[in-house]
Amino acid sequence: MNTPESVLVIGCGLIGTSIALALREHGVDVHLEDISRSNLELAVSRGAGSAVPPSAPDLVVVAVPPSSVVDAVGRALESWPSAVVTDVASVKSDLATRIATLPGAERYVGSHPMAGSERSGPMAASARLFEGRPWAITPSDGADEQLVQIVEAVAGLVDAVPITMDAESHDRAVALVSHVPHVLSVLTAARLADAPSSHLSLAGPGLRDVTRVAGADTALWSDILRSNAGEVRLLLELVRTDLDGLIDALGGDEPTVSDVLESGRAGTRLIPGKHGERPIELATVFVPIADHPGELQRLMVHTGESDVNIEDLRIDHELGRPVGLVEIAVLTERADALVHALTARGWSAYR
Amino acid sequence: MNTPESVLVIGCGLIGTSIALALREHGVDVHLEDISRSNLELAVSRGAGSAVPPSAPDLVVVAVPPSSVVDAVGRALESWPSAVVTDVASVKSDLATRIATLPGAERYVGSHPMAGSERSGPMAASARLFEGRPWAITPSDGADEQLVQIVEAVAGLVDAVPITMDAESHDRAVALVSHVPHVLSVLTAARLADAPSSHLSLAGPGLRDVTRVAGADTALWSDILRSNAGEVRLLLELVRTDLDGLIDALGGDEPTVSDVLESGRAGTRLIPGKHGERPIELATVFVPIADHPGELQRLMVHTGESDVNIEDLRIDHELGRPVGLVEIAVLTERADALVHALTARGWSAYR
Repeated sequence: MNTPESVLVIGCGLIGTSIALALREHGVDVHLEDISRSNLELAVSRGAGSAVPPSAPDLVVVAVPPSSVVDAVGRALESWPSAVVTDVASVKSDLATRIATLPGAERYVGSHPMAGSERSGPMAASARLFEGRPWAITPSDGADEQLVQIVEAVAGLVDAVPITMDAESHDRAVALVSHVPHVLSVLTAARLADAPSSHLSLAGPGLRDVTRVAGADTALWSDILRSNAGEVRLLLELVRTDLDGLIDALGGDEPTVSDVLESGRAGTRLIPGKHGERPIELATVFVPIADHPGELQRLMVHTGESDVNIEDLRIDHELGRPVGLVEIAVLTERADALVHALTARGWSAYR
Repeated sequence: MNTPESVLVIGCGLIGTSIALALREHGVDVHLEDISRSNLELAVSRGAGSAVPPSAPDLVVVAVPPSSVVDAVGRALESWPSAVVTDVASVKSDLATRIATLPGAERYVGSHPMAGSERSGPMAASARLFEGRPWAITPSDGADEQLVQIVEAVAGLVDAVPITMDAESHDRAVALVSHVPHVLSVLTAARLADAPSSHLSLAGPGLRDVTRVAGADTALWSDILRSNAGEVRLLLELVRTDLDGLIDALGGDEPTVSDVLESGRAGTRLIPGKHGERPIELATVFVPIADHPGELQRLMVHTGESDVNIEDLRIDHELGRPVGLVEIAVLTERADALVHALTARGWSAYR
């Protein structure tokens, strides 16, 4: 239907090369371009496409760093007058405003595949990078539906989940679900710097969860936060109001402490769970395991024999001794069956 | 050496009954007391100890709700004049000050086993609850070393990691590694309440990590935060200073954004990793799996055959389609070996 036959990918980094590899697997004719000769050669050597310019691509994917996107989109609109042009930048409305003034802007459809990796460059690319990830598509008002469908088709081809919304909603949404959580994770981790290490020895899995994303690349995140500064600031000011209220309440006014805690708990219930469904009631079964190769495998084999489906699994590495605690989340009504099955096989499983 | 032969546990909830069960496994003579007849009977029926009062216990463990600890410790010091008395409350210095004025206070040694569960009561108890968890022990200045060693011996017996520090340091440490991270997780989750569900559809694993602990029991956490209000407020005021700086910086001053991000990243490196060691360099191998019983088991079997030890494992359930993405953390130098081993067995594994 709207699947493109010929695609030009400009920028052979992690995202561009991954899109190219995934499209090649579906027989799309992919051409590649990069200002770095070595990036281009690496991407070609991985089978991501051809370095020869296309004759008339249906779609141009601009996958260059944020600061170069407007220029690159402008040149693509000019060079390929029959092509839809999209980009993959993580903040959309400023870009959309600037691109709207360019000749051919009616053929631009913004997008943002929400996938990444701690690695970068064409050698880190994978045709599987987008599997199951949201891919936001942000057409401008009055965009040609046919052109939007071409970008949606690409998101579908690479096994992402296309979600179409306007650019402002997108930027507000990523501020909420990604940028502000990142900031609060950073603020938590930043407090650890002055602490004696004996204090940190009391750290548990909760601290590691809250601060995990704070370990990400700071230059990249500095760019992201500044490019979405307006939306991020609005939310951070609401966070500050809550924080002020809580600091005051800890001086005496108990109801406000409970109110803030309750609103946080309510918020966690709104996060889509498995497969985008509302969260379901799960119970956790705990199993201590010895820390050597094969133990986790043995546990999985025995869990598999129990016929209880695993909804989630975490390994909580423990302090000061060679053991891990595995937490297996299963449907509440299946938890006892799993405990019994594992106990019968010699594990000390408990709820 | 200093292992107690006879222990009285007052309070047969999750923590008290779990301590009793673990001590019974090591042949300690355990006696139980609870103002709730049914709790006491349940704990006895689970084999946690005897409901008959002891003649002269070496140790009394007070495991009652926070508001009853001072009274219960006072009565224990009076009733058992040759016993060491400890408690398990999660905030220590206020308690210590109040207990110091009681007759027999020189036989009190505070402690805080850092373990819990989303369930409560004697039926949720487990002899394994403390396995590998930190157990803070907070003797007062000039405490008798022999008495402290009895409490340390109990922590060791139940396979916890005893960590001895003064009560003020303990309260500062738990504010840092547990209470403040909890508050920032709550503040993140609280912002989700007003969002359209289409915005939440862009949520990824980062949001779920940051907000996981915010789902905990709010009444319990309201108590915890208020009982450690002083230390928590001090840290939250530092967080507010960072937050104010970041809100201002997002108006234009880039260096401050980077500074805050960099201090957060540095903080994450200070958290003890596996077995209390400094974090080591890990790489993540990604493997998409179908969502039905047996798939994860099959993956573990194949991973086991690869002879690569799994350092950590997460299942990232994906939006809108029946698939999960498994993230396997291994030593960086072993990642390629795992990718090759899994690819050879038909998985689409990638770094």
